[in-house]
Amino acid sequence: MAPEGGGTGKRGRGRPAGSRSGTPETRDRILAAAREEFSARGYDKTSIRSIAKSAGVDSSLVHHYFGAKEQIFAASIELSFEPAFGVPDVLAAGPEGVGERLARFFVAIWENPVSRAPMLAILRSAVTNDAAASVLRGIVLRRLLERVASELKVPEPRLRAELAGAQMIGIAMMRYVIRIEPLASADLEEVVALVAPTLQRYLTDPGPVTG
Amino acid sequence: MAPEGGGTGKRGRGRPAGSRSGTPETRDRILAAAREEFSARGYDKTSIRSIAKSAGVDSSLVHHYFGAKEQIFAASIELSFEPAFGVPDVLAAGPEGVGERLARFFVAIWENPVSRAPMLAILRSAVTNDAAASVLRGIVLRRLLERVASELKVPEPRLRAELAGAQMIGIAMMRYVIRIEPLASADLEEVVALVAPTLQRYLTDPGPVTG
Repeated sequence: MAPEGGGTGKRGRGRPAGSRSGTPETRDRILAAAREEFSARGYDKTSIRSIAKSAGVDSSLVHHYFGAKEQIFAASIELSFEPAFGVPDVLAAGPEGVGERLARFFVAIWENPVSRAPMLAILRSAVTNDAAASVLRGIVLRRLLERVASELKVPEPRLRAELAGAQMIGIAMMRYVIRIEPLASADLEEVVALVAPTLQRYLTDPGPVTG
Repeated sequence: MAPEGGGTGKRGRGRPAGSRSGTPETRDRILAAAREEFSARGYDKTSIRSIAKSAGVDSSLVHHYFGAKEQIFAASIELSFEPAFGVPDVLAAGPEGVGERLARFFVAIWENPVSRAPMLAILRSAVTNDAAASVLRGIVLRRLLERVASELKVPEPRLRAELAGAQMIGIAMMRYVIRIEPLASADLEEVVALVAPTLQRYLTDPGPVTG
């Protein structure tokens, strides 16, 4: 699927009368508007035009700062993903109890509506749009997975980090998106207790690996 | 989000000239068309009208057999989900090695493009539309989770079945939707070997549970 909304990267054709131009505050305001638009409507239904409208600037200014829709989505993801970038610190504290610490860390991100909303929006966008999935893939690989893997002392550290991440994404899907019981209203201490050994094994137990 | 596409459940206003009417074959043809439409376009972009067009019948005939869009989506999910309904049989064969058997079972469903496409379509629809999530939730609870839980001899059998399911859904998301490496092209025997102990523990190990 191609990005919609005219994100063809045309820019620099002058600023329209009435829009403020060229300050860092304007850039931040556009980025905040983009984050809200992508969160509320997903990648497909968000356009450069709708972001510009929400930020109170002309579309050309959005192009000027960010280029095409994919680029502004990437900037918006980097911002929304910020809580998750704490994962390497959780791992750096050492292997003992890392499964439980990581389970608590993820649960805290998902339970806080402020961090949950943009994370769910990213998930929704990636599931329905290939360009959004590609942007997410690049950021997760570059910003998260490489750093996590460098902390692990097991074979195939990236694969194991992804399996741990898959467990937590799957729980988020079932608890917050599909909202299936009993997981949707399960006590979080119980979820952490059940999931911690799974994460611990992926990240610290060298076996079993075939092949 | 409300269903779109005119699925208001009006029906029985007579059959238009030119459409075949009232045979089991017609019903099957509509259902096959619905499954293809939902798979290709997702819940939001599929309408009673588009299903009717694809099946070569009038919209009123789709209403006659299935009612509103939610109902035809439910019938289409039941059909698409059929491979997963084998899970209770996998469990009924006994606790020894159930983690590995279940991992292989899931991987076989996801690796086969014929069963993968509708499963991914269901996931996409549920992630972007509340009505679709609600339909999926009901079918998974009624057709799958209750039967799986009845086979387990652990505390909180439903919660554990969901955590096992969450692990496999998360892997499907990362391998087939976001397509993040190395998981996207990992050797399946390696994935099965790493995941089997996770499923085994959720489904057969009574501890640890707090609270």
